[in-house]
Amino acid sequence: MQATEIHDPHGAGLLLTLFVMLAAAKLLAELFERLRQPAVAGEILAGVLIGPACLDWVRPDDLTGALAGFGVMFLLFGVGLETKPSALLRVGRTATLVAVLGVVLPFAAGWGLMRIRNEPQVEALFVGAALVATSVGITARVLSGMGLLDSAAARIILGAAVIDDVLGLLVLAAVSSLAGGSANWLELGSTAALAIGFVLFVAFLGAPVVTRVAPRVGQLRAGNALFAVSVLLCLGLALAATAIGVAAIIGAFLAGLALAEATEHEHDLHQQVRGVTEFLTPFFLVNIGMQVKLDVFGNPSALSLALWMTLAAIITKFVGCGLGAAGLGLRGAAQVGAGMIPRGEVGIVVAQLGLGLGVVSDRIFAVVLFMAVATTMIAPPLIRPLFAGAKEPDGR
Amino acid sequence: MQATEIHDPHGAGLLLTLFVMLAAAKLLAELFERLRQPAVAGEILAGVLIGPACLDWVRPDDLTGALAGFGVMFLLFGVGLETKPSALLRVGRTATLVAVLGVVLPFAAGWGLMRIRNEPQVEALFVGAALVATSVGITARVLSGMGLLDSAAARIILGAAVIDDVLGLLVLAAVSSLAGGSANWLELGSTAALAIGFVLFVAFLGAPVVTRVAPRVGQLRAGNALFAVSVLLCLGLALAATAIGVAAIIGAFLAGLALAEATEHEHDLHQQVRGVTEFLTPFFLVNIGMQVKLDVFGNPSALSLALWMTLAAIITKFVGCGLGAAGLGLRGAAQVGAGMIPRGEVGIVVAQLGLGLGVVSDRIFAVVLFMAVATTMIAPPLIRPLFAGAKEPDGR
Repeated sequence: MQATEIHDPHGAGLLLTLFVMLAAAKLLAELFERLRQPAVAGEILAGVLIGPACLDWVRPDDLTGALAGFGVMFLLFGVGLETKPSALLRVGRTATLVAVLGVVLPFAAGWGLMRIRNEPQVEALFVGAALVATSVGITARVLSGMGLLDSAAARIILGAAVIDDVLGLLVLAAVSSLAGGSANWLELGSTAALAIGFVLFVAFLGAPVVTRVAPRVGQLRAGNALFAVSVLLCLGLALAATAIGVAAIIGAFLAGLALAEATEHEHDLHQQVRGVTEFLTPFFLVNIGMQVKLDVFGNPSALSLALWMTLAAIITKFVGCGLGAAGLGLRGAAQVGAGMIPRGEVGIVVAQLGLGLGVVSDRIFAVVLFMAVATTMIAPPLIRPLFAGAKEPDGR
Repeated sequence: MQATEIHDPHGAGLLLTLFVMLAAAKLLAELFERLRQPAVAGEILAGVLIGPACLDWVRPDDLTGALAGFGVMFLLFGVGLETKPSALLRVGRTATLVAVLGVVLPFAAGWGLMRIRNEPQVEALFVGAALVATSVGITARVLSGMGLLDSAAARIILGAAVIDDVLGLLVLAAVSSLAGGSANWLELGSTAALAIGFVLFVAFLGAPVVTRVAPRVGQLRAGNALFAVSVLLCLGLALAATAIGVAAIIGAFLAGLALAEATEHEHDLHQQVRGVTEFLTPFFLVNIGMQVKLDVFGNPSALSLALWMTLAAIITKFVGCGLGAAGLGLRGAAQVGAGMIPRGEVGIVVAQLGLGLGVVSDRIFAVVLFMAVATTMIAPPLIRPLFAGAKEPDGR
């Protein structure tokens, strides 16, 4: 009989998908913690296990993609809430240097590696662009779990990730318009101005505006208005960011930053946001693991390129960003360099764009996908020991 | 240029949908509160406004449906967390009487109304079944906002809603098998035994098991393990409930109930669950409003049937459930009767099932849809004044 469909014609399958993703994530997180490995790596591995690469229980689709997107968005929103804008602005100069060096070196390496192997020029430029953008979600998750978001290195990483994303947008816009035939410098200039203007405007004026408006939110009649207004600000700025071309997570991070000072003592608000984050973040991590495909291993030339590409992606970010943060000393520089390694969903999206424009082949897309997932999985085991002395880890 | 697609090829449209739904819900909630009307009614009306019936900005689809489903699931999970199982079991006898009378009268009325108008027998039985099942989410939301979940009437409503759902399942199973030609009594019996066994098992043994296991959760290494385990229990029991044929929200409510005593003093856990609930519940309410279609108004005979059906649905639940709770006195009986009126998503799903089996016509489906949405929208303005004297409302 149709018992399972009676109350819920579509929902039961979906519920099962979510349960499997969440249960696998939490089981492997616990296992990894017991093996003294980062929980984040366990949750990504859970995605590899249940995804198409191994058991094929769950396949990435629109819905898991949407949950993953909301997961990393709320993750960065929560990190922003814990970060004082003033503390971030204080490390602005170092963060800028870290971001610039962390863009130039990986781009050159990605482009050069492709050209050495006689791949087409435009495709090489796209791969360079895909190597540029750091996905800061993973690092933020590891450091937030260790209670180290307020360390100097963490603040530099967060600031550099914002600047890195704007630079990555400009690189990608330039490369995309080159793919179309010739660069439209006027359009590039306006894209740059908009993106930089948005980030500076929200970073500098967001907090003062929120601090002035916050007391009025308290006068609203609807229950729990502060939470509703905060979530709307997060969604609204994420939306504005994507409209301008910056990643949604940067908008969400800036929204958190704007709210950080005004809501510093709102314990319940922080816990409510944390609830949403804790619920959604595993879907982000598992979804990364589910992107793993094994077909690249069937092609020796693609596999060799993928391995070289991953190595180049790791070394150039580590060295580039580390150099930028040399003022922190050897250990601090290594912390910043390692924290900027993960490319995650941002690298994948860049390659997807090239695929859509017809300038990136399926083979090279698989190579970039490998690089994006590999850099993301390698980062947590590097980050944790580098930061471990700073404070006793609380189990993540 | 393709700026909006650069980092987020599919996500931006989705983000916009969510922002519009949430912003409309919160704006109308605030407006309704200022007009001294229930916020819940405002949030449903927001769905009518932005949905196909009016502005057509957002259409219900798989994703809004999924968010709505999770919204009402977490809403009931949160309500369960605030409800002591012992307090619920104490009102068991009254709740059973309320549920039984609240099933018999609406079923007879729905069936009778159809037969008077010479509609086919099987279709009449389906409409009767669609009038049976209360959707307790709306009432729970109103009472939780008023801080009245621990009142006697609220406890009876919650208990009756669980029993009502099991009875509704049995009515629907009987009607469905009649639609297939003849009733399979053996299968009906096993469905009944499974559903009743599941509810009794979780209601009586859930809390003791959780209380025994809870200390071990504290020994887990992964961060915030209590929240992760709670969410997994909610998803797991919701899944088990749908597998048995009971609504997912009943499983989620029972999961909350099982955790209520063990987590009574875990303030942060409650706030984290509240965060997820507050984030997702507006999608449930707005999604109900978005179901409103105006085509029933173009057909005078359908409109007259829809109005009579709605009236019958309201009166029979109010009188049936009120009679069952007569022991509470006139006011308490009226509170219980009004609280059981909303049919919401449960009534819609029953009619969808009949549509899928080919025994309910499009015209009658539109009539049931009207009844389900109308009973849901009418309930909050009835419930609030009936409960208002019990405690000063805090704004919802």
